[in-house]
Amino acid sequence: MKRKRVVILGATGSIGESALKVARDIPERMEIVGLAANRNAHKLAEAANKVRPESVCLVDETKIDILRKALDYEPRIFAGEEGLREIACLTNGEMVLVAIVGTGGLRPSLAAIEAGKDLAVASKEILVMAGEIVMREARENGVHVLPVDSEHNAIFQCLEGKRSTLNVQRSTSTAENSKLNVESWTWDVSDVRRIILTASGGPFRELASNKFDSITPEQALKHPTWNMGPKITIDSATLFNKGLEMIEAHWLFGVEMKRVEVVIHPQSIVHSMVEFADGSTLAQLSYSDMCFPIQYAVTWPYRVPNTLPPLDFSKLSKLEFFTPRYGDFPALNLARRAGEAGGILPAVMNAANEVAVAAFLDRQVSFPSIWQIVEEVMNRHASVAHPDLDAILQADQWARAEAAGCVKSLKR
Amino acid sequence: MKRKRVVILGATGSIGESALKVARDIPERMEIVGLAANRNAHKLAEAANKVRPESVCLVDETKIDILRKALDYEPRIFAGEEGLREIACLTNGEMVLVAIVGTGGLRPSLAAIEAGKDLAVASKEILVMAGEIVMREARENGVHVLPVDSEHNAIFQCLEGKRSTLNVQRSTSTAENSKLNVESWTWDVSDVRRIILTASGGPFRELASNKFDSITPEQALKHPTWNMGPKITIDSATLFNKGLEMIEAHWLFGVEMKRVEVVIHPQSIVHSMVEFADGSTLAQLSYSDMCFPIQYAVTWPYRVPNTLPPLDFSKLSKLEFFTPRYGDFPALNLARRAGEAGGILPAVMNAANEVAVAAFLDRQVSFPSIWQIVEEVMNRHASVAHPDLDAILQADQWARAEAAGCVKSLKR
Repeated sequence: MKRKRVVILGATGSIGESALKVARDIPERMEIVGLAANRNAHKLAEAANKVRPESVCLVDETKIDILRKALDYEPRIFAGEEGLREIACLTNGEMVLVAIVGTGGLRPSLAAIEAGKDLAVASKEILVMAGEIVMREARENGVHVLPVDSEHNAIFQCLEGKRSTLNVQRSTSTAENSKLNVESWTWDVSDVRRIILTASGGPFRELASNKFDSITPEQALKHPTWNMGPKITIDSATLFNKGLEMIEAHWLFGVEMKRVEVVIHPQSIVHSMVEFADGSTLAQLSYSDMCFPIQYAVTWPYRVPNTLPPLDFSKLSKLEFFTPRYGDFPALNLARRAGEAGGILPAVMNAANEVAVAAFLDRQVSFPSIWQIVEEVMNRHASVAHPDLDAILQADQWARAEAAGCVKSLKR
Repeated sequence: MKRKRVVILGATGSIGESALKVARDIPERMEIVGLAANRNAHKLAEAANKVRPESVCLVDETKIDILRKALDYEPRIFAGEEGLREIACLTNGEMVLVAIVGTGGLRPSLAAIEAGKDLAVASKEILVMAGEIVMREARENGVHVLPVDSEHNAIFQCLEGKRSTLNVQRSTSTAENSKLNVESWTWDVSDVRRIILTASGGPFRELASNKFDSITPEQALKHPTWNMGPKITIDSATLFNKGLEMIEAHWLFGVEMKRVEVVIHPQSIVHSMVEFADGSTLAQLSYSDMCFPIQYAVTWPYRVPNTLPPLDFSKLSKLEFFTPRYGDFPALNLARRAGEAGGILPAVMNAANEVAVAAFLDRQVSFPSIWQIVEEVMNRHASVAHPDLDAILQADQWARAEAAGCVKSLKR
């Protein structure tokens, strides 16, 4: 097993930081050849100065000079959305870790797939919005899509040995009529009965629903088991995070939505489970640290030693499991509806949720308004079957505008 | 996937009964072609009359007439130890489920392997006493050894996808010098850090050790989570069952003894776990019913639907894990010592334990005497490196005689 050359999109966020930690922990297995960030020039330069990748990229072009000055060596510098696509396709890169919040990772991910790079996906939007397109492109280009979400990474581990090989042909870019044989694979989920996503339940797991109205951003940002960015932490509190993950699992593993279920597991030790046709269940367990799934995605199909602590069963004491409060946390049923309808509805749900979460963090709307806004925008949408990427991005824009309108009318 | 033709050795015991239940549950996947029992002629006939296998076998030759009269059809009838070997090698059979208590399953298992039959192993003695020989013979003959113990079956499931192919040559029986290429496989455990066997802890998990002396057979036979035969139920109470399983796991998966550990898990839902080099752990979960592992062994590498209940997470509430009380339950350390020493010591330990358990059930010795007898006999043994089957069976006989002597001196 050789060292994998990785480009990180979203190097200054929570996942990016964990990925840098993994690279330090297993230097003989992971080499960072590119680092990209949205707008934090100083933090990007700081990371680059340590890791010294050949290429860096800042999406916010107005800050390129700040970046250049803060760098103590001379990497190749990319800028803007176009730069993000270019660094994702670096000749030197083998895998792109996509950890950009929001829709910005979508085009670079597809560009990376077409360039034959494996994808490590931490940005839920990619598979929620365009799961059908991304997975098809990956199959046709013979590249691997490795989930970095701890839940999907857990399911990936539980499905080890359940891959079936595909032979596909793809057009080469040079000559329209020439076809290239590509070896690819897909999951054989014929004997999977249920995918069981575990959810910590967030900080309001046991709170009476009549108290939801007075929840503050500070309270919602206190996640009991995971240390993550603000958007995903609020999504964990509303359970929209789990809803998005249901749709993600559906596309990633080719399992119908009705076979994707959620179980509340407050300790966040079991990261997800697969129940097979014979009634037997496999589960993946580890402490709540994103370094575990990131490393697995990078070194797969191998596993290598690291400095992460394994489970100490003498200190684990107990693992609990509960049925979600579907009535009080409507996100799960909204997500099931979006995933089952398909088309642009998952993108609409995702965009409306992003706007609503930002408005909640900005103290413009209440905690339960997040669900109300999302449902309202979902109800207004006009369905589009088998949308292409442009249609999906248009739906995203439309839903953001609609959600902003809802925020305005709800403003308190 | 076609129907598998299975011979059951030990058809009238607890595992045999579960296997008959599995065959009724998945008739299109499992066909019973042979049933063998030790001495219960009536029960064997009753099972055979329902299932109508082509062949039956009773080890106790004095009861063949009783069997013949109780049968309502005319199967081929085998008798005695020799008959057990013959039915295990039936031309028509593809897999032999070995579920005979004691050492009786050893020779038939080796005969079945040589005849190219896959082995489903429920009798711990086979791998504890002769793990090295059995696994080597299985590899050389290209047959699969599928564990039916729920713990080892769980580990097998967690290791799915971790097999590496071997090409071995075996001598054909007809001409000494002619070699046959056999495709075989072994586990690739290079990235396995620990095998974690779960143990219910038995009925005395929380009992103060100063009360062990007054434990009655009736108390020891009340297992909190599993419904099993008397010998294995006592072994669960002493933790010798887990000790034997440690040695079994060592041979079955080719993992060093020091990597095999035990965790107490009173709910018996997690049947065992594998911790990998990267600190991630996979676990297998299901309710405590031997039909799960038996079916998996029969249908592997496929899984098929059945009528067994899958886990209901709304009713599971909690799973607990504790470190074993090594000082109070010496069986685990005795087993580790036996497994690490290898040679004939595991056979000696196993035989002494069988005699001691029988004496306890017969109220001749106290509960803690079981450990004392086993340790005493282990201390007296003279080690033999790489013993053959005869040396192992001799050690078994020697240890039984020594243990009987200990029982006599301890009799109360």
